[in-house]
Amino acid sequence: MAKIIIIGGGFGGLSFLQKARKSKNDFILIDKTNHHLFQPLLYQVATAVLSPADITVPLRNLFKNDKNVKTILSEVKEINKEKKEITLDNAEVISYDKLIISAGSSYSFFGKNEWSKFAKGLKVINDALDIREKILKAFEKAENEKDERIRKKYLNFVIVGGGPTGVELAGSIAEIAYKNMTKEFRNFSSTDANIYLLEAGDRILPSYSESLAKKSYKFLNDLGVKVMTKERVENIEEMKVTTNKQVIYADNIIWAAGNEASPLIKYLDTETDNEGRAVVNLDCSIKEDNEVYVIGDAANFKTESGESLPGIAPVAIQQGRYVAHNIKKNIEKEKRKPFRYSDKGTMATIGRFKAIGVVGNFELAGFTAWLFWSLIHLVYLIGYRSKILVAIEWIFAYFFNKRGTRLIYRDVDKN
Amino acid sequence: MAKIIIIGGGFGGLSFLQKARKSKNDFILIDKTNHHLFQPLLYQVATAVLSPADITVPLRNLFKNDKNVKTILSEVKEINKEKKEITLDNAEVISYDKLIISAGSSYSFFGKNEWSKFAKGLKVINDALDIREKILKAFEKAENEKDERIRKKYLNFVIVGGGPTGVELAGSIAEIAYKNMTKEFRNFSSTDANIYLLEAGDRILPSYSESLAKKSYKFLNDLGVKVMTKERVENIEEMKVTTNKQVIYADNIIWAAGNEASPLIKYLDTETDNEGRAVVNLDCSIKEDNEVYVIGDAANFKTESGESLPGIAPVAIQQGRYVAHNIKKNIEKEKRKPFRYSDKGTMATIGRFKAIGVVGNFELAGFTAWLFWSLIHLVYLIGYRSKILVAIEWIFAYFFNKRGTRLIYRDVDKN
Repeated sequence: MAKIIIIGGGFGGLSFLQKARKSKNDFILIDKTNHHLFQPLLYQVATAVLSPADITVPLRNLFKNDKNVKTILSEVKEINKEKKEITLDNAEVISYDKLIISAGSSYSFFGKNEWSKFAKGLKVINDALDIREKILKAFEKAENEKDERIRKKYLNFVIVGGGPTGVELAGSIAEIAYKNMTKEFRNFSSTDANIYLLEAGDRILPSYSESLAKKSYKFLNDLGVKVMTKERVENIEEMKVTTNKQVIYADNIIWAAGNEASPLIKYLDTETDNEGRAVVNLDCSIKEDNEVYVIGDAANFKTESGESLPGIAPVAIQQGRYVAHNIKKNIEKEKRKPFRYSDKGTMATIGRFKAIGVVGNFELAGFTAWLFWSLIHLVYLIGYRSKILVAIEWIFAYFFNKRGTRLIYRDVDKN
Repeated sequence: MAKIIIIGGGFGGLSFLQKARKSKNDFILIDKTNHHLFQPLLYQVATAVLSPADITVPLRNLFKNDKNVKTILSEVKEINKEKKEITLDNAEVISYDKLIISAGSSYSFFGKNEWSKFAKGLKVINDALDIREKILKAFEKAENEKDERIRKKYLNFVIVGGGPTGVELAGSIAEIAYKNMTKEFRNFSSTDANIYLLEAGDRILPSYSESLAKKSYKFLNDLGVKVMTKERVENIEEMKVTTNKQVIYADNIIWAAGNEASPLIKYLDTETDNEGRAVVNLDCSIKEDNEVYVIGDAANFKTESGESLPGIAPVAIQQGRYVAHNIKKNIEKEKRKPFRYSDKGTMATIGRFKAIGVVGNFELAGFTAWLFWSLIHLVYLIGYRSKILVAIEWIFAYFFNKRGTRLIYRDVDKN
């Protein structure tokens, strides 16, 4: 009977625990929040389609019947792999026999951390609510503003980074401005809004094929999004983005560019890549200790062909299950079969009714892709409650143009 | 064509506007928030049954097709009834021909405003989320705490005030502690929690009959709530409530005692009662100006028999419609029929499946009352989206013991 600590209740930690809990081990799950977050739909909380509780489940509740699973709401401050101990926020020290690190990643501002004051990233519920309130409030400020030049700044939205998150956010903000709010203001038209999607590379969605990226570009363009490629951000100040080509004044700047692995990885004293991710063995353990595993976004798993797996939910889920299998069966290092990622595809939505994606060997784009995307996400959401609530919110958002969670209740500008 | 300003988009302002908008007048609706809040269910947001967006609708969206209605998100800072002007937060001055004040009320700490730092009232969405996070976090703190005496403080909940809000909150917190969370903690049992409902008067629910109050007392008692009557709060400090009988140490102190009308009323320079409410004429206008109306919680409307109407939604709704009728038909002061409140009954829930209420001339208690309460509230919620979402959340909360909105995402203790 081993004592196993899991850091992080995201896709990796959760899928590990769901499979491993039926073994004769003691598990301690530590998370900074009290909930598992269905991250792929977080951008919909930021864009007023869903409520936070639609895509979260209390971690503690998931394991209430597993007496061998203890959940702790706390932040891990330090890992000591020599002593096999972790230290919590409140200075409590807990020892372990095996350690599973699925602590995810946060946004990286490429060394320009001062930009984070003016550009918000999207990783946790609180980020999503901050972005949501800021977007909604921009229109309210525009309505109350007499000066045309200042109003223009309120109506400019800049999204930095043309990956899936950037594309999904841009499409969704365009829907708000050009579809949902068109008749609501008296001093200006919400269609005056400008939505800029800035991508430093040659094209958006670099992880997809060129043909899918082209289709996405067309979908975004049709929606009214200004997609700017080869446009590198050089500076971000208050309400101001400077690129290699122009200056854009905007009240809303959203950062969807780089990732950085959890700072906990550095305590492992193991090889990391340029994003701070632990470079792991083929069994997901670190080189120096075969009972310390890193899975999901905090890991750089190189396949036998030398390619690094992407930081997406299916990778974390499969790695969690894989490690759980080895631990359940108590398989020793030498006898562990290498982890193999089974790529079932990825998708991204572009506004309502449009998506692009790869499913098996097929590329999909348009309404069919969107339908597929919706179904897949409903299937993967945890619990019937979330499935039902999200389906209903989508019906109102997509068929009746009603974004039900259009709530401003805090003063984000004062934060 | 008159220019009509409505201050407040609560039940009074909204029902006024819904009826008056089809007249040839210009309307300006001013609210501090961007949404109408269905206040009777706010305690369910505070106790993790509902999400904020389940019981709110964006005001602007409700009137998007009424070109003669303009919505402003702002706070009114001053009213000048001689000049017929109001001043907004941003110093903008707007003139009016007629003014409807439905600005509601806030909590009154009976002159002890320093208590508000330690005891939270429940009026707006942000209050509800603060209370929700604080309640949920108390259990998490108890789990992380080694010192038994400190843990006890975390598990004590004090609700001050035995009116409907206090009773509903106490019942709902008891459900969380004694039903929903019982198997989730490893270092203590959530059933160790103590929920105190303190009432200074002889009995709880003074606005109901003695027999219904007795039944409520029994329901609360059966749930495990410690109901203390004739217990007057003498002081509130951090984690400490002193009454005329004892000292209770508690991390969660919720204030559901006194009300105080909106501070705007004092600008009217009109007669007020001891809660700061404007004492209005039988046509809801103030004595000094028959084109300034005060409706809902900010008004003290005395019926012809000299009784003051209670501060509840049906009064505000009916007053809003009544004033709208007079304005639509352009009825002069002398010809206005006095407002008559048609009392269709009131209800309060006590945990799941139990409620008490008066419907017409009948008193109801128990499951039938609860069923009636649920149906009535679903009928009155605005929009199909809210009705459907609330019904689903209730099914999960009441039949499956799952409070779906059990989210902690901000650090309330740091506020």
